[in-house]
Amino acid sequence: MSPEEARELFASARIARLATAGADGVPHIVPLVFAVHGDTIFSAVDPKPKATSDLKRLRNVAANPRVALLADHYDDADWDALWWVRADGAGRVLDAAPDAVALLRARYAQYRDTPPDGPVLAVDVRRWSGWRA
Amino acid sequence: MSPEEARELFASARIARLATAGADGVPHIVPLVFAVHGDTIFSAVDPKPKATSDLKRLRNVAANPRVALLADHYDDADWDALWWVRADGAGRVLDAAPDAVALLRARYAQYRDTPPDGPVLAVDVRRWSGWRA
Repeated sequence: MSPEEARELFASARIARLATAGADGVPHIVPLVFAVHGDTIFSAVDPKPKATSDLKRLRNVAANPRVALLADHYDDADWDALWWVRADGAGRVLDAAPDAVALLRARYAQYRDTPPDGPVLAVDVRRWSGWRA
Repeated sequence: MSPEEARELFASARIARLATAGADGVPHIVPLVFAVHGDTIFSAVDPKPKATSDLKRLRNVAANPRVALLADHYDDADWDALWWVRADGAGRVLDAAPDAVALLRARYAQYRDTPPDGPVLAVDVRRWSGWRA
């Protein structure tokens, strides 16, 4: 799959998973909704109170900016329909990012009702890759 | 969510995502099918030829056994139905694991047609955790 195709497929997905690792090298993984703009992926910390473990992603990015995100399609009845796309890049935590929040609100109705007001994670993607059955 | 509930929910999912990190601390993430037995999660490298990048999970585990797996449920129309469960643990690569392959074949019809014949990744889970909307 070409990087362009992987990027398009990723951008069309509704959910992705983010893998980070702290300075101790221990991997962490969370699901997130997101918006792609160019080669940057934006996601927000939801407005509802988050347990400490949820913010581990931000602490990890501060300690080690290298991250990977994955979007995929699984179909139990048809393994010939499977695909995944991965985005490898570097994360940055933004305290205020109105443009990113606007992108997220345009994509997700729930964010239009309740805008995310926490920090925004921006991931500058250095490599888009993927696989299709 | 209790560890028992997280474990049960994880075991009932059909797909999960695995996060690993090499000695260089760069996170890697792949989707996988799996079977849970007690507090161990088994997955196999598929019989079809895999690109080098697919085996990065095994090289990472050899260099750094700490891994995290995630199973989740997303519903674009109903964010009140969302949940995720995470398994943090240590990975081991097994060259021959007939019992694990039998568990995988019992869960996935595709593996009954074409048994996985690559190495098996066993993850001994030290912490089951989760969140429900």
